[in-house]
Amino acid sequence: MQEVKVIKNVLEANDLIADNNRKLFKENNVFVINIISAPGAGKTTMLEKTIAELKSKLRIAVIEGDIATTRDADRLAKFDIPVVQINTEGGCHLDANMIANSIRGLNLAQIDLLIIENVGNMVCPAEFDVGENSKVSIISIAEGEDKPQKYPLIFQVTDVCLVNKMDLKPYLDISVENLISDIQSINPTLTTIKISAKTGDGLNEWHEWLMRKKG
Amino acid sequence: MQEVKVIKNVLEANDLIADNNRKLFKENNVFVINIISAPGAGKTTMLEKTIAELKSKLRIAVIEGDIATTRDADRLAKFDIPVVQINTEGGCHLDANMIANSIRGLNLAQIDLLIIENVGNMVCPAEFDVGENSKVSIISIAEGEDKPQKYPLIFQVTDVCLVNKMDLKPYLDISVENLISDIQSINPTLTTIKISAKTGDGLNEWHEWLMRKKG
Repeated sequence: MQEVKVIKNVLEANDLIADNNRKLFKENNVFVINIISAPGAGKTTMLEKTIAELKSKLRIAVIEGDIATTRDADRLAKFDIPVVQINTEGGCHLDANMIANSIRGLNLAQIDLLIIENVGNMVCPAEFDVGENSKVSIISIAEGEDKPQKYPLIFQVTDVCLVNKMDLKPYLDISVENLISDIQSINPTLTTIKISAKTGDGLNEWHEWLMRKKG
Repeated sequence: MQEVKVIKNVLEANDLIADNNRKLFKENNVFVINIISAPGAGKTTMLEKTIAELKSKLRIAVIEGDIATTRDADRLAKFDIPVVQINTEGGCHLDANMIANSIRGLNLAQIDLLIIENVGNMVCPAEFDVGENSKVSIISIAEGEDKPQKYPLIFQVTDVCLVNKMDLKPYLDISVENLISDIQSINPTLTTIKISAKTGDGLNEWHEWLMRKKG
């Protein structure tokens, strides 16, 4: 008789599938990032710039997580790279099983960098490992200075934080220095990079981080 | 033998408690709003202005939902009104049971308006009835034009949507008219009010809405 595996809870079940995803990614030498932020922090705008810049150097594919619509996937389709859309139909995060299903539609052997754009939510996506190499956070400085202390988990679990919408700084009552020092007090090993996805400022540093990590 | 009530799922259990909260609020003639938005949309800044304006007309109390910290509650404590803090310790929304526990610490007979500030999250809080009279959404125009289509539920369940950070409009590539028409196509009965919580612009209309609904 086959042994019955008891899965204690949702997160444990998720982690088993995530480990399997990670194994598949490693076998195929795919570097995987999972991008997490609040709604409207600028994930897709950043990705448009990053894909345009790096697609001549890396074979890139994207998994787009959205509650409804294919708007973000549509924005990235113009780059002529594989884009898989997950509609969570109300679900507030991507989990490892959704990723496992999505990668069946991708030829992993032909991908160097797989970018997962999570549902816009600073809370739940940070709790779910999907088998990625690195989690990446984006915070818009228009969200205000107090976000790191109020939503610490996202900064604890990500390796790099893109501090976006720097072009709005003259019009906001915010100390970006305080914001970054709060982020670093939550996670001293986190790399923070100030960017404007709109103007392109700071993206070079982010692309260098990505190329270095990808190895 | 007592009949065993089978609670089918989390939302059903929640709704039973929410109905009980609603009954208590009604008995005490308390008008209750549940404010929902993404992180950093400006809930607390709006509340500072609204409480300052209305506290001479209404006896106001606040329940503050946060994942960690008491920063928002601290910002409202200066108004010398009852403020109860709920720390969800990682939880991404307030539910009816948390509210039921919190109101034990309030004298409902002495309150006209109870303001519940939910955890900053456009997704999960919209799913949970806590017994409020009205759900209120806030969207920052810095979040971009595509949010209503991507996160429809919050606009389906709220009665009024405050379109905030209008002061940033000159610096953003956004059509507020398109944003509002998208919101109204999702929910034609939703009232939208353009505000700047920072400058105070538009708040009169919001306060009039509140006084009218409170009755």
